[in-house]
Amino acid sequence: MDSAVIPVSKLREFLIELFKEVGLNNSHAGIVADSILCAELRGVKSHGLVRVSTYIERVEKKATNINAKIKTEKIKKATALINADHGFGQIAGFYGMKLAITLAKKYGVGLVGIKNSNHFGIASFYSMLALKHDMIGIVLTNSSPAIAPYGSSKPLLGTNPLSIAIPSKEEKPIILDMSTSVVARGKIRLAKLKNQKIPFGWALDSSGRDTDDPDLALKGSLVPIGGPKGSGLSLVIDILCGVLTNTCLTGEVKNVTDMTGPSKTGHLFCAVNIADFIEKNVFKSNIDEIIRKIKSLPSINNLQIFLPGEIENNLEEKSLREGINLDSNLIDELSRLASRYKIKNLI
Amino acid sequence: MDSAVIPVSKLREFLIELFKEVGLNNSHAGIVADSILCAELRGVKSHGLVRVSTYIERVEKKATNINAKIKTEKIKKATALINADHGFGQIAGFYGMKLAITLAKKYGVGLVGIKNSNHFGIASFYSMLALKHDMIGIVLTNSSPAIAPYGSSKPLLGTNPLSIAIPSKEEKPIILDMSTSVVARGKIRLAKLKNQKIPFGWALDSSGRDTDDPDLALKGSLVPIGGPKGSGLSLVIDILCGVLTNTCLTGEVKNVTDMTGPSKTGHLFCAVNIADFIEKNVFKSNIDEIIRKIKSLPSINNLQIFLPGEIENNLEEKSLREGINLDSNLIDELSRLASRYKIKNLI
Ligand SMILES: NC(=O)c1ccc[n+]([C@@H]2O[C@H](COP(=O)([O-])OP(=O)(O)OC[C@H]3O[C@@H](n4cnc5c(N)ncnc54)[C@H](O)[C@@H]3O)[C@@H](O)[C@H]2O)c1
Ligand SMILES: NC(=O)c1ccc[n+]([C@@H]2O[C@H](COP(=O)([O-])OP(=O)(O)OC[C@H]3O[C@@H](n4cnc5c(N)ncnc54)[C@H](O)[C@@H]3O)[C@@H](O)[C@H]2O)c1
Repeated sequence: MDSAVIPVSKLREFLIELFKEVGLNNSHAGIVADSILCAELRGVKSHGLVRVSTYIERVEKKATNINAKIKTEKIKKATALINADHGFGQIAGFYGMKLAITLAKKYGVGLVGIKNSNHFGIASFYSMLALKHDMIGIVLTNSSPAIAPYGSSKPLLGTNPLSIAIPSKEEKPIILDMSTSVVARGKIRLAKLKNQKIPFGWALDSSGRDTDDPDLALKGSLVPIGGPKGSGLSLVIDILCGVLTNTCLTGEVKNVTDMTGPSKTGHLFCAVNIADFIEKNVFKSNIDEIIRKIKSLPSINNLQIFLPGEIENNLEEKSLREGINLDSNLIDELSRLASRYKIKNLI
Repeated sequence: MDSAVIPVSKLREFLIELFKEVGLNNSHAGIVADSILCAELRGVKSHGLVRVSTYIERVEKKATNINAKIKTEKIKKATALINADHGFGQIAGFYGMKLAITLAKKYGVGLVGIKNSNHFGIASFYSMLALKHDMIGIVLTNSSPAIAPYGSSKPLLGTNPLSIAIPSKEEKPIILDMSTSVVARGKIRLAKLKNQKIPFGWALDSSGRDTDDPDLALKGSLVPIGGPKGSGLSLVIDILCGVLTNTCLTGEVKNVTDMTGPSKTGHLFCAVNIADFIEKNVFKSNIDEIIRKIKSLPSINNLQIFLPGEIENNLEEKSLREGINLDSNLIDELSRLASRYKIKNLI
């Protein structure tokens, strides 16, 4: 068997059982499962099921605190600082965004920082939570060093993604979800596996020279979008997530695969209540109009024009309908976890 | 005379006199002057004194409302929507950022949208206002079409800059101030003047093909940083500034040089009160430490590494000390304005 298509509901049950056996309660297991499936459904496979074994290994090695108790450290009307107690980033992230939404209902805007967290997966899982409240959701996280500050050859900044979700009326919402590097490291690993060169402009070697060699690239750093612009953006995201939350300094976040201790990740969640600026139906119809306007612009080479998140929205619809295709390696990995935690296998 | 160096205080007096004659009161003339000088001092000459004649022509042609009365349209605890009444973007912007700071003092965060505004010049003039309050300042504005949405060949998005100012203790603050295109259109105009080619990757011709010909580039569109990423970022900035404030839809902002009516520009200002997250001196020392860490990283080709805003901070110090160098064309332009408005000439 090379691959198999599994219905989403079955995957969800499997993940919830698994994470419950790992030690989460039912509702927390549901959040972690939904975040992983969100990535998988939206075609962001790098943040989907391939992460499950790492997340569980972190718990086994006590790098992620399975008994984390989320604590409010500070609350000042429209803002809050939450301590994730080194637990799952997904659980803290879900809590953080929900709290930002609650604050925005009362104050127009809510801003929640999360300290002492871990990898939270796909950023738009959280920003999209704002949509059904007719709010704009904004999400930032820092991550482990991958990008060298502009002019340097040493990776210090994470690919620190930023997601902004904007509700629409009849059209699909606009969901920007982007890291600050030209491409994810995963694309370079893939080129290496396939014995291919990478385009110049993706990565620098360890002395800071542009390279097309995936090996040298993996030992070097990722190129930020727009040179000093992406590098600057990544730095300020790091500061807003790591320093503002008093979690750690730039360059100190550990990779999710580093099991030697808490990763010291920080996140920032913001919700903006649209109705406190403009009648919400006017806003949403206007977004529809903009989407249609952009879709009908003259396109390059007659190719389709996509809005931010549109490709992912389409994939999500398709996978909800047709199930998710898993390759045999991943199925084996999940089977091993199923046996280890004595739950019913996926297939 | 090819150029002349003018002390900053003299330029400031000149600008204030000029804008008073144009019809602003003393304090408003001071704000417009300071914003223009901020750009000039920081080496962002494209948003400095070269803009004065356009700003004044707008008033003369009633495209900018010299009698604008700033009105609060909505206020909901931590957020506000302000109507700039088609007046100077600088005056509304200054007011908006100050209000965001006031709201952040009370609520931890303040978010202020400005509708019906005009070109406000250099974005960091406003974000930096937060620094002395130990706050982080975040500023967005939309602008007239220049970037084609990714995949399209028609410019619809502005270069919509984003500025984030972060206070430090002993080091200079971090001031990111960046548009969403790879380069400003001004750089392409300059290449054209010098009869030079431009690098591929800066601009597209009118059918969406990458071009090195400045003429074709000026008829086409600017390339966004990181392809769909910069394009997406520009779109969400446009929505947060134009649609959320109920000013206009994406693509409808008029260029500052278009005198046929109000430009329908919108801005968004956010202030974050650091002390509501982390003790402010700890934060500022941590920023110092990060700045020093980045400055001491191994650099490419032994060149200096700069933090966001550092080049501009250095230029500002230098020009405050030595004055500002104006070329003869600009001096002539300002002289003509001085005669027209019957004020004392600059030199
Ligand atoms: N938790 C972490 O530490 C971490 C770190 C980095 C990235 N991530 C996640 O990884 C995921 C992938 O990030 P990425 O930067 O590689 O994303 P990407 O480059 O695939 O997409 C970036 C954005 O561009 C849009 N886009 C892509 N192609 C487009 C096209 N042809 N036309 C119009 N828009 C288009 C997408 O919808 C998306 O909004 C994100 O979900 C991010 O949150 C997480
Ligand atoms: N009002 C408007 O409509 C409007 C529109 C576009 C731009 N602007 C303004 O134009 C100005 C210029 O924008 P831009 O995008 O061309 O700026 P830029 O490309 O010169 O700089 C962008 C950012 O990168 C940093 N930077 C530049 N070189 C660097 C280096 N070598 N190392 C480290 N960091 C470096 C800068 O400090 C800045 O923060 C900004 O002030 C912006 O607000 C205004």
